[in-house]
Amino acid sequence: MSHTQQDQAKLLARVRRLTGQMQALERALLAQAPCADVLQQLASIRGALNGLTAELMEGHLREHVLAAESETARVQAVDELSAVLRTYVR
Amino acid sequence: MSHTQQDQAKLLARVRRLTGQMQALERALLAQAPCADVLQQLASIRGALNGLTAELMEGHLREHVLAAESETARVQAVDELSAVLRTYVR
Amino acid sequence: MSHTQQDQAKLLARVRRLTGQMQALERALLAQAPCADVLQQLASIRGALNGLTAELMEGHLREHVLAAESETARVQAVDELSAVLRTYVR
Amino acid sequence: MSHTQQDQAKLLARVRRLTGQMQALERALLAQAPCADVLQQLASIRGALNGLTAELMEGHLREHVLAAESETARVQAVDELSAVLRTYVR
Repeated sequence: MSHTQQDQAKLLARVRRLTGQMQALERALLAQAPCADVLQQLASIRGALNGLTAELMEGHLREHVLAAESETARVQAVDELSAVLRTYVR
Repeated sequence: MSHTQQDQAKLLARVRRLTGQMQALERALLAQAPCADVLQQLASIRGALNGLTAELMEGHLREHVLAAESETARVQAVDELSAVLRTYVR
Repeated sequence: MSHTQQDQAKLLARVRRLTGQMQALERALLAQAPCADVLQQLASIRGALNGLTAELMEGHLREHVLAAESETARVQAVDELSAVLRTYVR
Repeated sequence: MSHTQQDQAKLLARVRRLTGQMQALERALLAQAPCADVLQQLASIRGALNGLTAELMEGHLREHVLAAESETARVQAVDELSAVLRTYVR
């Protein structure tokens, strides 16, 4: 995943924050937090997850499509993105 | 929009079907159709719209990114897609 | 669809604007507008459609759930919303 | 969060599975897994998160709206759901 090597530290920090948000959600459920709070936490996790995903998609376009090492690699990278896109835009 | 020239007829047919669905929604509102029916119509319009969008995004990748006429054009096409993606994945 | 009777004029205006946006999209395709423009139009239609949908869902909750005429009607209205929600949150 | 007390064990299991998926994503990034794999993992986490969210929204409707203890509580529960809905349908 070369396009994350440069800023891998940054990406990892975001993923860890997401894991932390998930663990906070787990604690909220255990503490029987109000349902509305849990729904708000879920919405916030979803926002963070989508932000991370959009960034990785752009990284993918930049590194694996634009900077592809061969035409074959570029076609493959486009196919990979198309497959994932289908699950977001449906 | 070269990648739609080949199958422009097909695309136009889909867009016209969508326009037709919107006009049916208008009639449903005028006829004071049950709210649940209107919500179902909206969900179905959204599905058709997203399907069309995913197809056009893939066409964009194929024609304007993979088959770009120059490196500059390819970078621009990627930037255009990234900008649109941001509004779908957030 | 009682909760739209009050502000039916407003709702209809929004739906008609959406139909108009769809027809503009059709013209853009016919005129072979740049693909990026078409994708932007689609994103904008989707935003308008979602805004309308969210408003109708809230109207549904207000009029058919909160102001339900019977417990049976309330249960039905909740079931209808749940079914639609599933297609948006998946 | 009364509507999760009944099946709290089930919900917690789902949240823990999600936390586990997030930690697997972290390991994938550390191991410099192919970008396409990471994007697939993200899509799969999103699906699980949305499934959980839809279930909690339905639980909210069932327990805090339908089975509300008072009219005031019911109105509040509807307002809470509307606020969250806005972030999913936009």
